[in-house]
Amino acid sequence: METIINLLPLSEDQRAAFSAAAPNEKQIFRPSPALQGAVDVPKELLSEATIILGCADPAALKQCGNLKWLQAWFAGTDNYTAPGVFPAGAVLTSATGAYGQSVSEHMLASLLSLMKRLPAYRDNQHAHVWRDQGKAKSPAGSTVLVLGTGDIGGSFARMLKGLGSHTVGLSRHPDRPVEGFDELHAISSLDDWLPRADVVASILPASPETYHILNAERLARIKRDAILVNAGRGNAVDCLALADVLSANRLWGAALDVTEPEPLPRDHPLWDCPNLLLTPHTAGSDHLDSTVQRIIEIVLENLKRFLAGEPLRNRVI
Amino acid sequence: METIINLLPLSEDQRAAFSAAAPNEKQIFRPSPALQGAVDVPKELLSEATIILGCADPAALKQCGNLKWLQAWFAGTDNYTAPGVFPAGAVLTSATGAYGQSVSEHMLASLLSLMKRLPAYRDNQHAHVWRDQGKAKSPAGSTVLVLGTGDIGGSFARMLKGLGSHTVGLSRHPDRPVEGFDELHAISSLDDWLPRADVVASILPASPETYHILNAERLARIKRDAILVNAGRGNAVDCLALADVLSANRLWGAALDVTEPEPLPRDHPLWDCPNLLLTPHTAGSDHLDSTVQRIIEIVLENLKRFLAGEPLRNRVI
Repeated sequence: METIINLLPLSEDQRAAFSAAAPNEKQIFRPSPALQGAVDVPKELLSEATIILGCADPAALKQCGNLKWLQAWFAGTDNYTAPGVFPAGAVLTSATGAYGQSVSEHMLASLLSLMKRLPAYRDNQHAHVWRDQGKAKSPAGSTVLVLGTGDIGGSFARMLKGLGSHTVGLSRHPDRPVEGFDELHAISSLDDWLPRADVVASILPASPETYHILNAERLARIKRDAILVNAGRGNAVDCLALADVLSANRLWGAALDVTEPEPLPRDHPLWDCPNLLLTPHTAGSDHLDSTVQRIIEIVLENLKRFLAGEPLRNRVI
Repeated sequence: METIINLLPLSEDQRAAFSAAAPNEKQIFRPSPALQGAVDVPKELLSEATIILGCADPAALKQCGNLKWLQAWFAGTDNYTAPGVFPAGAVLTSATGAYGQSVSEHMLASLLSLMKRLPAYRDNQHAHVWRDQGKAKSPAGSTVLVLGTGDIGGSFARMLKGLGSHTVGLSRHPDRPVEGFDELHAISSLDDWLPRADVVASILPASPETYHILNAERLARIKRDAILVNAGRGNAVDCLALADVLSANRLWGAALDVTEPEPLPRDHPLWDCPNLLLTPHTAGSDHLDSTVQRIIEIVLENLKRFLAGEPLRNRVI
């Protein structure tokens, strides 16, 4: 018999569905108020658990002596995959697939906001100043380079294609077609593509390969009137180098939902950079109800698979 | 022989095309640096002109004793159609059709910006505050009510339909199909539709019928968590009533590119309303090169039509 610690915030119907999916197991419901961050779980539950459905604090996982499987509610699980964190032999699955809509819409909102100079108009509004800020940009006819062609990158590309952009995706597997992209190429062609893009958007996960992939040298290859968007992991961009680029007005603008480090320290140069739009890692989270709904569907399906001995979706470890 | 005063900013090729279109007329080129506002034209040219291609100052048109036709570079020509302004017997045409892309993209940018709370994040950024502002909204699944289903309204609806919205257009001619709208109804059904919409967007022109069409009573019929967008004419909305609604937090937010009056006086209550995003009538203008290109195409085609004795496009008077 498994001992399942279920940390999801569930409606009555959803709770009944989880109970029905595991009628012969011990399932302990400890609903978290929100699907944000990691949660504290009492020590005795952690040591008893064979399955954890939800993001228990990574630092506490050492106490999980019996863990077989943890299902996270994040898409990016780098906090669990860092060396020495996850219990040996246990399986880790992510909620990849749940955040595409929320994060890609936030990226689109940020990109269009910069194209139409809305941050500058917002500042003028506070000063009660009625002033034309000059030329705008359009997604139509723009070449949009997307680093990472998974769920989020594909959704972002589809929306921009619908607005008339030419969409180019870079990934490790450019041979797999992804709807929404006009072209797919290997991430190794990044240096060739950067000078050709009007928009450079990264939704890359954290990994040794993506660390500072947009370093000072590569940022200098981006067109002077292009827009940079990062909603993957903050350390894909060298944030100090980006602050230099923005301060020298060598980009039209940048929209960051992720930074290195997070939270951004109060004295970091990025805060006051011209033409920067900063959001505090809030593109995904549980800010759309549809995201929460999708996470719960993914977890419930994986629970059924686990108990039926079938391969799990979104396996990370 | 016609005397044509051409006020358009033209490339060499474009100027040659205008010359070629009217080889037997007297065409005087006085290029305006930008397609913004109305321009001063010397008195002697005004009195000589039979055709004016561009927005001569409406207040000076009394001096046009020989005017047959004025082609404006605006879509909204209410400054010319006000009583006593336009010379009797002359024809007025607008540049309707040129602004659809620019204005609808600006409306979309403003709407998404409010849905994702970007103005609040912008304010936090200035204060170096890393703070989650809570729930966001999505265009997907939203009912978007568009008042005015012409070039701009249709383009706005098409983009939102592509993002998963249900689009409802209200117009004087709901029997004419317009791409991008899931439903079309008579503007007389406005009161029924307001409580059903998640987004209410107006791109209505100025007219006696549209003056304060969104008055205090109608604003109160809009859902408490809906978003209002106005990029048509400012006086379609009772701006003082809207300030009351926003101050009482009875809307998710509002995005205004137009106000009553314009410019908005420095002490107007709208400036500091919560959840208001204000831009100073800059959604259209000449901020996209493609707008300028389309205006020039419309004017050139109309010049050819006029000289061939054919009916003009976009006739207003």
